[in-house]
Parts: sequence; C-alpha cells; structure tokens
Amino acid sequence: MTTSAAAPLAPTERLLCGPGPTNVDPIALAAMQRPILGHLDPELQDILTEVVRMLRIVYRAPDGLVLPLQATGTSGMETGLVNLTQPGDTVIVGASGYFGRRLIEIAKRAGCDVVEVVEDWGVHVPNERLLAAAEEHPDAVLMAVVHGETSTGSLHPLAELGAAMKDSSTLLMADCVTTLGGTELDIGGWGIDYAYSCTQKCVGSAPGMSPIAVSEAAIERFDARRIPAPFAFDFNLLKKYWVDRPTVYHHTAPILHIYALYEVLRATLDEGVQERCARHVAAGTHLQERVRVAGMRLIAEPGHQLPQLSAIRVPDGVDGKAVASELLSEHGIEVGGGLPGAPPMWRIGLMGPNATTQTADRVLDALLGVMQRHGAAVSA
Amino acid sequence: MTTSAAAPLAPTERLLCGPGPTNVDPIALAAMQRPILGHLDPELQDILTEVVRMLRIVYRAPDGLVLPLQATGTSGMETGLVNLTQPGDTVIVGASGYFGRRLIEIAKRAGCDVVEVVEDWGVHVPNERLLAAAEEHPDAVLMAVVHGETSTGSLHPLAELGAAMKDSSTLLMADCVTTLGGTELDIGGWGIDYAYSCTQKCVGSAPGMSPIAVSEAAIERFDARRIPAPFAFDFNLLKKYWVDRPTVYHHTAPILHIYALYEVLRATLDEGVQERCARHVAAGTHLQERVRVAGMRLIAEPGHQLPQLSAIRVPDGVDGKAVASELLSEHGIEVGGGLPGAPPMWRIGLMGPNATTQTADRVLDALLGVMQRHGAAVSA
Repeated sequence: MTTSAAAPLAPTERLLCGPGPTNVDPIALAAMQRPILGHLDPELQDILTEVVRMLRIVYRAPDGLVLPLQATGTSGMETGLVNLTQPGDTVIVGASGYFGRRLIEIAKRAGCDVVEVVEDWGVHVPNERLLAAAEEHPDAVLMAVVHGETSTGSLHPLAELGAAMKDSSTLLMADCVTTLGGTELDIGGWGIDYAYSCTQKCVGSAPGMSPIAVSEAAIERFDARRIPAPFAFDFNLLKKYWVDRPTVYHHTAPILHIYALYEVLRATLDEGVQERCARHVAAGTHLQERVRVAGMRLIAEPGHQLPQLSAIRVPDGVDGKAVASELLSEHGIEVGGGLPGAPPMWRIGLMGPNATTQTADRVLDALLGVMQRHGAAVSA
Repeated sequence: MTTSAAAPLAPTERLLCGPGPTNVDPIALAAMQRPILGHLDPELQDILTEVVRMLRIVYRAPDGLVLPLQATGTSGMETGLVNLTQPGDTVIVGASGYFGRRLIEIAKRAGCDVVEVVEDWGVHVPNERLLAAAEEHPDAVLMAVVHGETSTGSLHPLAELGAAMKDSSTLLMADCVTTLGGTELDIGGWGIDYAYSCTQKCVGSAPGMSPIAVSEAAIERFDARRIPAPFAFDFNLLKKYWVDRPTVYHHTAPILHIYALYEVLRATLDEGVQERCARHVAAGTHLQERVRVAGMRLIAEPGHQLPQLSAIRVPDGVDGKAVASELLSEHGIEVGGGLPGAPPMWRIGLMGPNATTQTADRVLDALLGVMQRHGAAVSA
C-alpha cells in the first residue's frame, strides 16, 4: 500500500438517467456553497422549520412528524420497520420487485413474522391480495408496500389501499423513494402511517438524506414500545432536535445537504408540486411512447407504469450490459440495468432536473443508436 | 400553514470554533461541485478505493474493514455497539462525559448488560479501573471508551489500554469522533477493534459521514452472530458494496460527500498526517496557554487535554450563555456550551482548516473582549 495522496479528483461529466442519483439541480449545488452554520446556531432553526414545512406540503402530510433523516433511503426503510415493529410481530409485505423483497428481508432481520404477498417482477401487487392477507392476519401490526418500485417502474395504487385500510389498526407503510417530488402524494389523506424517500431522485438534490413522514398513530405505536428503539433514529429524539428546539443536542445535522434540500423544496413550491409532477409525467410518457414505437416492451404492466422510471426489457439477442456500457463511455449517459434476480432490462430515470422531453429524446436517440450498432432491429 | 415557498437561503458567515462542525475546507467545497457520477459508475470504483486506502493511512488501520458510513457519528457509535453485541451480552463502558454516557445508553438500548466505569466530567477514566472491570467480567464481549471526549476535551490514554487488552477476547471499541485527523492514531498497532469518527471535525469536511475501522477479529465476531444485524449497516454488505465491487448494490452512496472526503484526505496526506496533527497541537496548546494566562481553568485534567478541543470553565459570576451568544451575534464566532448535565463551560474547537494559532488568537481575543464587557475580571 502506497502512502502517497491520490490523484486529484477528476470525475467525468455524465447525464444521469438511471434509477438515481439524478444530476443535482444547480440551485442545490449552489446552496451547498453557502456559509456553513453550526447545527445549534439559532439561525439554523428557521431553516429546519422551513424544510419541515415545505416537506409537509410535498408529502401532503400536515400532521405527525415530517423531517429528513441523515440516512440512505434504505435506512429510511429500516427505520420504519424497526421503529414500528417489535420482534415476533406480524408484518404483511407486498413485493413485486427488488425493493419489496428488501422490505421482506429487513422485516425478517427485525425479528418479524412476515406475510409475503409476492408477484412477479413488474406485476403490481393487487390490493385485493393485500386486503385478504390483512383479513387473514388481523393481528398484523404493519403492512408495507412499495409505491414506486424502483427496480421495475411499477406504480402501486396506494390511494385505494389507504382508503381500504382506513379503519384497520394495522399501520400502513409506503416506499416513496422514487415518487416523492415526481408523483403527487397525499400521505395524510391516504392514511399512510410511515412514508420514506430519498433526496437524489425526483427531489433533485444530492444523495444523502431520507425524508420521512410519520403519522400520529405511528408515533403512538412507537411510544408504546416495550423494547427501546435504536437511538440514532428514535422518532422522539429526532423530533426534539429537528422540530422542538432550541438547542437539544442529538446528532450533528448534515448542514450542506439541508441547505440543498431547502433550495430544491423552495424551487418545487415555486414551480408548483402539481406542475412538477406533470413535468415528470410529460417526460416519462414521451419516452415510453417512443419505446413502444421502437417495438420494445416495458417491464411494468400498462396502467401501473411510473412516469419517472421506465424499465425496458432488453430485446432478445441484445447484450444489455454492453449497450449500457457503450452509452456511458460513448455518450456519457448513464442508464441502469436490472437488479439481482430481475430479467434483463434498462432502467431509464427522468427525474428532477432531467424530467424533460428533451432529455428523454437525448437518451432514447442515443440508446437506439447504440442498439443499432449492436445489430438490434429497432424502429426509430 | 402557508403553502408558499420559503425565502431564499441566506445563512450568515460564521467562524465555527465550537465542538464541530468546523468550517469546511475549501477543497472539500470545491469537490462537491464536480460532476456527479452514478454510484455504480465504474469510474466511482477508483474513487472509493482511494478513499478507503487514504482512510486506512489516517486511521493507521492496514487490516480489516475501513470505510466511511453514510451516517452521523452517533450512528457510527450505534453501529459498533449493535453489530458487535447481542442482547444479554456484557459490555464495559468507560464514561466521564456526555459521549461516554451516550455509549452506556445505546448499549442498554441494544439489550446489553452494561458495566459502567464512570468518572466525573473531565476526569479521564483510568485504565486501571477499566482493566479491573475486564478482570471482573472476563465474559464481557466488548469494552468501549471515548478517545477524545467531545463534551470535556479529555483525551484517553488509548494506546496503553490497547496494549493491556491485547490478549483479551473482549473487543475494544473507541470513539475517535474528535481525534481522527487531529490526533495521531494507530488503530492497528493499538489493537482497536472498532473505531468510529465523523467528517466535520479535524477531518475538515462537511457533516455527513462516519468513517469506521473494523478489525478482523471484530468481523469474525460479527460473522458469528446468532441474531441478524441491521441491514443498512451490515459490515459484510457494506464491504461488498464499497470494497469488493463491481456493481453490488446495497444503497446509494452520498457521492458529493465522498468527493469532499476524497479531497480532504488527499490534502491530509499531502500535508502529512503527523504534520497535520502537529498543527492541531500547536493551535490548541497556544489557545490553552492563553486561557491559563487569562486566569481561567480548563475542564479536562492536565496531561489528558485534547489539543483540538478546549473546554473552558465559565468563571463564577459570568453568564456563559450570554457571552457565547454575543460572540456569535457581534463577532460571528461560534463556540460551544456545555452539554446537558455538564458544568457551565465554553467549548472551543480548533479543527481542520481552523487549527491555526491565528484562529486561536482571533477567538480568544473576541472571548476576552466580550467577557470584559460582561464585567468579568480577566487578564489579557
């Protein structure tokens, strides 16, 4: 092992159109250059308060606890499962992709008995099956589903599930990692008890935080735990630090990421949440239309397709990895591949600043060009 | 609740000389403006590899697993306790400040039987007491101590403890939150099994990551768990993602923070780890000498004083909070106060880019000036 310093950092410019991270909104990058405040500075309090207020609007979660964890989306997922269950609890999980399966794995690690309601990749989990499981397991403390399945581009009918579960004592948890900021949410109205997301997809900031929304009912459940929850993600300690203040120490907040989130939330409200989501729909449906015209197929079922993430089946005889690799090296465009266990696919994300029809065209033109060079028969 | 966007972000310029975060090194800020790569981009692999290689040098931890968690220092602490123990295990904790007490609390939350070896604020926990506890509890799976107690400025004689514990089956864990990058460490040589830190203190980057060093023995212990560890901070999953690669998905890494860490580590090696630590010593001892000359007292015992963090006892009759508040509002200088339970104090950190005698003079001049205005008798 040499002990000398590494070469200066020199990353290549990329257009990030995979499943995330997306390119960071320039206003978020600019925010990260602002003077850093201490995390207990009185001036920071207004910033935290505004982040929470704006996040409530984007989540449409007027009640309960809303804040961004300093965490990955996966930690946001694990926090919900660990904080809202105790070993031996029954949990129902709907899974038809990688992240649904991850919910199952984490719930099992947390010591839960998991009722797995599983469908094939890209097939949405029907609410009827989930509700039947809930009827069969009235003691289930939690039901977890994936609103936007990042591994397949499948969109779950969450509003309908929430309405049907309204009077149930089973808490409802939703993975909104790929939907927050790109798909209209109504966490309060739908009765979602725990939602988690990330900052590096439709929100358009850098990877580094996991915005969560916890309902009053979920907080009551948390307060009634017989086994203490982990310290770092304890809802009450987080609330004292982020919301109640002043100067209750819990951890050191990631100030620059909070600045970045503040500015993208501000831009989201300036644009309008509805308008921002409509922009994601316009870009995504444009791309998906062109995919169909080119004779290719999407992994997600029609009617359950996320606009912001298009998982395209790699046509037979085409080496999907080679095509993606050439897109990156020749065009500087990143698209995702399939996650372990999934069928061969390309995942194209049009998120945050990249949710435009121009970017959709740029990615698809490049993809079709590379495919043609690889001998695939596609109609442009 | 108004639904309009917040005012544009406009934080005031501060000189951050509290216990952290420190002002971010300009090279770290510049790094965060570089083109963002996807977290599975082949180009990122070299960057991760170099971060790990450079981090090993600063920790002096050639073996085992070394990487930065996307986490707070507190999560780094909790990860060690949760991953290396199981409910019912006996754990010995040395505590003479807020973070030692936090180790006790988190170990209890994790279901451990905690042997508390406690001293008063600022009094270092003698190794003799810790070793006596180890002899009394040969079944203890872990001993945890705080190398640099951020709440008091006390430095633990860690090398000696490591040497004395060398043949013990009890793992040794150390809080290096305030020491990494400012105090010479020899994690491998001292036989530390789990060290954790943060990026926003002597490392000189932004708050957002928690660099850890895990020994081979600790990984063996982790592998032998009967109860699974949490998913997000599972050592083996992290190793596959950060080190083994390519393209094993686990979470989305905080790319811009990794860039920032890359550049400050590079600068550290360019400066020399020894030279960087000597700079922290020079700045801190200069400040501490002036504190003594001014007739004030430090909280930490002589001979166990961290250079980079000076906890100064607030003189009788002085309103410590009012002085700190005026330092912030009049001079734009942040110093820390005492954490809950601690005696009244100011905590002055000279860390990362702020570890210079010039900054020491600037802070102390301002402090003495404000104190005088508040009617305190101090000799300049």
